[in-house]
Amino acid sequence: MSNYLSEKARGLIPYVAGIQPQEPGWIKLNTNENPYPPSPRVLEAISRADIGRLRLYPDGDSNTLCQQIATHLPIPAEYVFAANSSDEVLAFAFGGFFSGKANVMTPDISYGFYPVWAEMYDAGTNIMPLRADYTIDPHAYKGADGVILANPNAPTGIALSLDKIETIIRQNQDSVVIIDEAYIDFAAVESAVNLVETYENLLVIRTFSKSHSLAGLRVGYAVGQPHLIDGLQRMKNAFNSYPLDMLAQMAAAAAISDRAYWDETRSRIIQTREQTSYRLCELGYPSLPSQANFLFVRAERAKALYDFLLEHKILVRYWSKSRLDQFLRVTMGTDEEMEAFLSCVKQF
Amino acid sequence: MSNYLSEKARGLIPYVAGIQPQEPGWIKLNTNENPYPPSPRVLEAISRADIGRLRLYPDGDSNTLCQQIATHLPIPAEYVFAANSSDEVLAFAFGGFFSGKANVMTPDISYGFYPVWAEMYDAGTNIMPLRADYTIDPHAYKGADGVILANPNAPTGIALSLDKIETIIRQNQDSVVIIDEAYIDFAAVESAVNLVETYENLLVIRTFSKSHSLAGLRVGYAVGQPHLIDGLQRMKNAFNSYPLDMLAQMAAAAAISDRAYWDETRSRIIQTREQTSYRLCELGYPSLPSQANFLFVRAERAKALYDFLLEHKILVRYWSKSRLDQFLRVTMGTDEEMEAFLSCVKQF
Repeated sequence: MSNYLSEKARGLIPYVAGIQPQEPGWIKLNTNENPYPPSPRVLEAISRADIGRLRLYPDGDSNTLCQQIATHLPIPAEYVFAANSSDEVLAFAFGGFFSGKANVMTPDISYGFYPVWAEMYDAGTNIMPLRADYTIDPHAYKGADGVILANPNAPTGIALSLDKIETIIRQNQDSVVIIDEAYIDFAAVESAVNLVETYENLLVIRTFSKSHSLAGLRVGYAVGQPHLIDGLQRMKNAFNSYPLDMLAQMAAAAAISDRAYWDETRSRIIQTREQTSYRLCELGYPSLPSQANFLFVRAERAKALYDFLLEHKILVRYWSKSRLDQFLRVTMGTDEEMEAFLSCVKQF
Repeated sequence: MSNYLSEKARGLIPYVAGIQPQEPGWIKLNTNENPYPPSPRVLEAISRADIGRLRLYPDGDSNTLCQQIATHLPIPAEYVFAANSSDEVLAFAFGGFFSGKANVMTPDISYGFYPVWAEMYDAGTNIMPLRADYTIDPHAYKGADGVILANPNAPTGIALSLDKIETIIRQNQDSVVIIDEAYIDFAAVESAVNLVETYENLLVIRTFSKSHSLAGLRVGYAVGQPHLIDGLQRMKNAFNSYPLDMLAQMAAAAAISDRAYWDETRSRIIQTREQTSYRLCELGYPSLPSQANFLFVRAERAKALYDFLLEHKILVRYWSKSRLDQFLRVTMGTDEEMEAFLSCVKQF
């Protein structure tokens, strides 16, 4: 570590993302990417783009994109904030609403980036254990200085129904409740976006990386009442005036306008998940009941299975942590990729 | 302001960027954009891009781009860090090297974002007045906990020669000296990149927004010894694992590979600057000696001239602050745009 590093930087334990091999030949089931390409409208939008205009700064508020997101949901456009990935939106939300707070509740098993942002923005976390069945107990989330949950949760894939989310929001009306809905489009439960107009303390965060097949373009957004959106804008404007580039804004707006394609691809992924879950169970590897684009698969010899898959150029995710170390998280690929995966599991 | 806002967010005074009108018809001389389109290689790279691959996360370390930047400078690739605009790189640098420090020296007149990041990352600044002639006194920068300077400086356009930059680096060997070279490619002075291999406390920060005509794509980079690059990576990985999208990485790599185009367009801008400066002087509006892609033009009735230009749909930048309020900052446009600007000034 450099001697010049600030105390702040020394104290951070950076997030470690899944491997992104740049060479071809891998079956990549490790970072919850969509196996299908983005909507054809994305290619159209990028082909039509006036590249000469890249000399100019983009719209710092991504107004056209926010309008398109608003139409998709639907919700008024002043309820939407877009930035460079949902990770950036989440970071702004931690800074804007949780910084300096003592009791920010978050599950012990969830997206590994939450405690990193808590450290970055000096938020004290109250780590709430999942129940024995890996579900969240909504009644435990009470009187917090802030709540951050993923719904469906990761890496479990288990989702809370909207009434349970509402319970959490009502039990914490003096603080902001953030629902990270990265995987909601693969779930049967209703989105918390439907509660945003009712609750002033609810912020829903979403991404184009999963159901819109645009992980490569880094676009995320938040939905909340205008006073919360103002708070995010404040953080953005004290960090980077123009977080989303011109092509990303255009491509994301094109992707979210194509409802039919989005519906078809997410349905296909849901179907693959149900089939894969069933077949893994038959092979003796039951999964938690997932509502996401991945399965959290129980395997006694999880690390050995991970290594075996790796040898066969199949990447999945494994964590050597208590309560996680007997599982693999497996992203849903194409049906062909899942056949290759299942046959490798069978071989093991 | 939302009642839910953290103390941190309440304390911030966000940066206010120049206006970005989205409708056509403006002569935009207000945000130091390049009047020429990016290299034709950018269009080629984007046309060739496999849009289907946007479903995958990009390379979080932007290795190919960093390699291309390294070749351009030239410097070893492990000395380069790229992220989502030089603003983001600067923010990471404040967090990584200045957070918690008491005496970070920066000029009273410089890029308005520096004090914002200082506040964001809890760095105490020591605001150093420019001399009466708007130059930086290198001997005053001594024994700091950190130094942040733009060279050429903004909005003055005045540059420090490399030996003066070296003096500052040597006078502050226990702390990181950041030289923000957003405008260096329009300057006659040598870049501090040439000192990076000698001084372990030097970090040079650059952008694709100005001399590479890619403000719309948001790509910036830092050059420094690997221990400093590690510090930036640490901050990045505690904020956003993949800050640069796939298309931005490809397009920026293409732009910086086209040395001939870059040389031609920056020479043209330098020529426009010299001519415009001469003609403004003849009209009774002398400029500070600029080495950037803008002029800081002295005008007794600066605000009235700003308003007059605005009425004629010509945007320049004006600050109502002491020592700045008798100036306009005017970005160099095409020769045609500068003719329109000059004729409007004459009319005034």
